Amino acid sequence: MSAIPTATVSRLVTYLRIVSQLEESGAERTSSDDLAREAHVSAFQVRKDLAYFGRFGTRGAGYSVATLKRELMRILGLTRPYNVAIVGMGRLGEALADYPNLEAYDFRLRAAFDVDEGKVGREVAGLTVRHVDELADVVRRLEIDIAFLTVPSTSAQAAADALGAAGVQGILNFAPTVIDPPAGTHVEPVDFLAGLKRLSFYIQQPKVKEETA
Amino acid sequence: MSAIPTATVSRLVTYLRIVSQLEESGAERTSSDDLAREAHVSAFQVRKDLAYFGRFGTRGAGYSVATLKRELMRILGLTRPYNVAIVGMGRLGEALADYPNLEAYDFRLRAAFDVDEGKVGREVAGLTVRHVDELADVVRRLEIDIAFLTVPSTSAQAAADALGAAGVQGILNFAPTVIDPPAGTHVEPVDFLAGLKRLSFYIQQPKVKEETA
Repeated sequence: MSAIPTATVSRLVTYLRIVSQLEESGAERTSSDDLAREAHVSAFQVRKDLAYFGRFGTRGAGYSVATLKRELMRILGLTRPYNVAIVGMGRLGEALADYPNLEAYDFRLRAAFDVDEGKVGREVAGLTVRHVDELADVVRRLEIDIAFLTVPSTSAQAAADALGAAGVQGILNFAPTVIDPPAGTHVEPVDFLAGLKRLSFYIQQPKVKEETA
Repeated sequence: MSAIPTATVSRLVTYLRIVSQLEESGAERTSSDDLAREAHVSAFQVRKDLAYFGRFGTRGAGYSVATLKRELMRILGLTRPYNVAIVGMGRLGEALADYPNLEAYDFRLRAAFDVDEGKVGREVAGLTVRHVDELADVVRRLEIDIAFLTVPSTSAQAAADALGAAGVQGILNFAPTVIDPPAGTHVEPVDFLAGLKRLSFYIQQPKVKEETA
């Protein structure tokens, strides 16, 4: 398999969201034109993105919604559970621990860490907060796959390095700073400021209609 | 001005992040090839996105980093301040109130609301939490432009409708549900599950190298 552009991976996640909504609405068939319109890309782009992973659908007949959803979940690795830990149990860490949709895709919260002795030992979402000194040991023992990094920016790189060394494969970085990925670890930033900047575009240009076709 | 695709707006935010990093690193010139590589799109796409807003740079000579950054900020409406309110002062709302990079782009937190009498009157990030009954009045008086919606999913649409009716132009939706935008209001979802799904792609395909060229 050749290298997959990161933008393609992002769009696959968008296509999955769209076909999930189609399934909920009772639709049985869809097309690259449908997906393109909802995802705000060209139909050629949709077909090209999917072509990295083989053949889907039938020329002229489009895609089965159920099959495309199942295939997208398989491609995205969403057919298996992932063990998740949260590092940094401040207010954001606590809010994420209670995030209602986490288990819908089999992301299982297994551990929570903090440096603050005042937080260690507390119960959050059914878990006892542990000291980060235990991180390497607990990550290995509980086979943690993914960490949510919710520490202050100044601690983010050191925490990411510790997680990578302990064998965590993915880090979702909520700290407002860029992290150098540890070897063998993929880092995804969660940047809500990007959403804010898109908002400001639409606010200052009220005459610009959002393109939906 | 013709309709701007939402995907173009997202990429403009990405280009701004890239030129800001270039400026911090001391670079004075850049090119559509540079931007394309960092943004994981084609150079043709970069030029097409920028062409919606006029002519930048000189054929063959690329772009001045400083000029392109200034123009992107102008296009995105980031050269003026925005008044922000948070609706829902649970743990996520409180975490956002203290988000350190908010003021860097002149997003000014002016008000915080909750329905819970136990939270109303509390001080958060220098603001007194108000009851949502005051929302319409306060939003108008303080000229709130943007709201962060951090209420439970079941309350999200009603809160968004109240914000729209009060004249808020943009809503950053952190509730894990899709909101129908009130008339005249733009809604941007913050979906960290999308980042999680991208992570799972890279975790389950460790042999797939992320394309950087």
